[in-house]
Amino acid sequence: METDTIAAISTPPGEGGIAIIRVSGPEAIPIADQIYHGKNNLENVPTHTVQYGHIVHPQTKERIDEVLVTVMRSPRTFTREDVVEISCHGGMIPVQATLEALLLSGARLAEPGEFTKRAFLNGRIDLSQAEAVIDLIRSKTNQAAKVAIQQAEGRLSRMIRRLRHDIVETLAHLAVNVDYPEYDAEELTSQYLVQRCESILKEIDQLLQTARQGKILREGIATVIVGRPNVGKSSLMNTLTQENKAIVTEIPGTTRDVIEEYVNVRGIPLRLLDTAGIRETEDVVERIGVERSREALAQADLVLLVLNYAEPLTDDDRKLLRLLQGYTKVVIVNKVDLPRRLDLEEVQSLIGETPLITTSIKEEKGIDQLEEAIARLFYLGKMEMTDQTYVSNTRHIHLLTQAKKSVQEVLNGIESGMPLDMVEIDLKNAWQYLGEVIGEAVAEDLIDQIFSQFCLGK
Amino acid sequence: METDTIAAISTPPGEGGIAIIRVSGPEAIPIADQIYHGKNNLENVPTHTVQYGHIVHPQTKERIDEVLVTVMRSPRTFTREDVVEISCHGGMIPVQATLEALLLSGARLAEPGEFTKRAFLNGRIDLSQAEAVIDLIRSKTNQAAKVAIQQAEGRLSRMIRRLRHDIVETLAHLAVNVDYPEYDAEELTSQYLVQRCESILKEIDQLLQTARQGKILREGIATVIVGRPNVGKSSLMNTLTQENKAIVTEIPGTTRDVIEEYVNVRGIPLRLLDTAGIRETEDVVERIGVERSREALAQADLVLLVLNYAEPLTDDDRKLLRLLQGYTKVVIVNKVDLPRRLDLEEVQSLIGETPLITTSIKEEKGIDQLEEAIARLFYLGKMEMTDQTYVSNTRHIHLLTQAKKSVQEVLNGIESGMPLDMVEIDLKNAWQYLGEVIGEAVAEDLIDQIFSQFCLGK
Repeated sequence: METDTIAAISTPPGEGGIAIIRVSGPEAIPIADQIYHGKNNLENVPTHTVQYGHIVHPQTKERIDEVLVTVMRSPRTFTREDVVEISCHGGMIPVQATLEALLLSGARLAEPGEFTKRAFLNGRIDLSQAEAVIDLIRSKTNQAAKVAIQQAEGRLSRMIRRLRHDIVETLAHLAVNVDYPEYDAEELTSQYLVQRCESILKEIDQLLQTARQGKILREGIATVIVGRPNVGKSSLMNTLTQENKAIVTEIPGTTRDVIEEYVNVRGIPLRLLDTAGIRETEDVVERIGVERSREALAQADLVLLVLNYAEPLTDDDRKLLRLLQGYTKVVIVNKVDLPRRLDLEEVQSLIGETPLITTSIKEEKGIDQLEEAIARLFYLGKMEMTDQTYVSNTRHIHLLTQAKKSVQEVLNGIESGMPLDMVEIDLKNAWQYLGEVIGEAVAEDLIDQIFSQFCLGK
Repeated sequence: METDTIAAISTPPGEGGIAIIRVSGPEAIPIADQIYHGKNNLENVPTHTVQYGHIVHPQTKERIDEVLVTVMRSPRTFTREDVVEISCHGGMIPVQATLEALLLSGARLAEPGEFTKRAFLNGRIDLSQAEAVIDLIRSKTNQAAKVAIQQAEGRLSRMIRRLRHDIVETLAHLAVNVDYPEYDAEELTSQYLVQRCESILKEIDQLLQTARQGKILREGIATVIVGRPNVGKSSLMNTLTQENKAIVTEIPGTTRDVIEEYVNVRGIPLRLLDTAGIRETEDVVERIGVERSREALAQADLVLLVLNYAEPLTDDDRKLLRLLQGYTKVVIVNKVDLPRRLDLEEVQSLIGETPLITTSIKEEKGIDQLEEAIARLFYLGKMEMTDQTYVSNTRHIHLLTQAKKSVQEVLNGIESGMPLDMVEIDLKNAWQYLGEVIGEAVAEDLIDQIFSQFCLGK
């Protein structure tokens, strides 16, 4: 258990009306008291109350900012430790100066995610709930936020716990019979095991069935628009983003060029990749070459290929069509406002079952049909949020898949007449995998890795 | 007086650990209650306390976020109205959804600066204090923040109020003698007036003497680096910014190209202009042409002209030197690590008293001397913050200058034997100008203009 006191700026950087510095740990209140001047010492104020005052430099006693300070005593806090939140005027300088004053007074700068990590280590939330907090912060669509808030509230955790409880019960039953085989016919135990495992398998399967939709809800459908120069890629992008309130995000750690935009098409979150490239040159494939197109495409859940209605199919078009075999895609034949020179039948014969939509983006024709086609592709219809519990995190999906395999192994083992103490190992593995979802018996370095994805101050 | 209830996101946009939504107005608490689910109704909780709970959509009752809600009842609040602050998990979607829920429940979206405007209109702070809040948020250096916090605490306001009090006293004395001239010899009144006005003038002058330094503290010294291609402008920029912890800001409302960087050179805040241009091309003057250089230079408080030690003076250098006549500048002769081909005496004869520093930025030579030269130019030495009250805001400086002129007019009037009821008008003007500093008798559109400079949520 960590015992030092940590501090960090918890609001996003930039100019704003309010900035919050959060302090957590056994010394949070005495440390804050060293830099706080107000009517009362923070030591003496009731928990969960707000005090008006000033932050002063611990040495020079110069005033740094006018603040509101919230004192929250353990255990009813985010971290279950004593927490002090200092609400400064926004602006980088006073906030930085306040943080520095805290560090001078004995706090340590928190690592990214360290507050949430403490909430996890102190048992307030489990690992999947902590991960949901990241998801909630990062969410780009309402649906993603809903999946995250459900998970943060522990819905997934409760299902996982119930499954683990079932497995433990089964293991207990098994243990009795493995240790004292004379108490029961081996045959009966096998029957019981098969019954229990099939029921557990069914529940895991049901969860995994939500994974595709959950992942889409969480991450959006990675979408790439491709096509020769001047077929209308950038107009298509603009139409999609303008009609659907786009959120632009730059991906941290990469160049400025890699920009994603999120758009909601009939409730389906599309994550448009490499939009900067298209915006700048209207010529991605030419510019980045087929090799790099392959890379961009490697991440794609959906490809929108744009062809030109007013020109015959070119070699480049054919190359693209070949490249895109096996991708989930929509072919958009644009510029139907111009005279036709494209052989639509040839295109249709090349793409088979792939939906083909004719549009005039310029004249705003065919956009509805395009959106409808995308919606149909993902079987999501209106993508109403049902009351279902979604699995959306790749780590969880992986662990559930492993757990499923282990339970399957149990069933296979019984069928092939393996001794019960052998199949017991597989069942224990399933229990272990499920535990990792909620953070039980998870290796420390994995925990560090998960929390390091957080922003500073969370 | 405004009577509706306003709401806005008060933290900067972006991903962060915490985002705050502020609600202010007579209905703040009942409106928040409509979307808050927790142990108690907010109506019933004590003031200045923090509650844990959830935000739910007012119609669908779907959970939007897990939050802490702070209830602060009038009048001990930022706006002097009832205030509710909702602390959400950071992240755009839950924060937006919470704000939308508040708007659905009867709050109105606040305009930029509207919370601070209410604090002003409700008499909690005066106008110069409100302006200091903007300055504090925008401050890019510690010194700027210190000037702002002093002003936010009302130090300037108190000086202005004392001056106005002196003027009112003088006017009262004058009124008696204007109305009842028989009570006193006009001569004596004039003497009294001269004495009082000289004292007032002296105080205004003292304040105005802080204006140059105050403005520099507040805004930084607008600095432009010019020179031919490949003389080392971009290396100079990098050296200055790397050694001095730069803060990069994009100026809102302009293109991405206009980027400022703040660096502290021996305590002097330099605001480096058009750094993006230099970074990108190492060739600003060539690229933007002399005409646009003139524009960039028009804002400059300081010009750093870089010449090449290893090449003879070119026509372009001479053109630049002519263009820069009359500017506060330092001439930097760079690349002294290479053999000299520049006629230093010719340069010195062309620039006269302008400091000339030879450097090898590559070999990190001469940087100290350059920084020393800049510090000397601004007579600021270590720029220690004394306990002085600074005037730093252009609006205040203008009003104080007007007030000074009016008091001067009083003195001129008396000297030229004008009747006392004529000079009285000038004295009243001085009182009026000083009042505008702290927001007394300020026109409504000016107030709107000042507060519209704020960020949303303040």
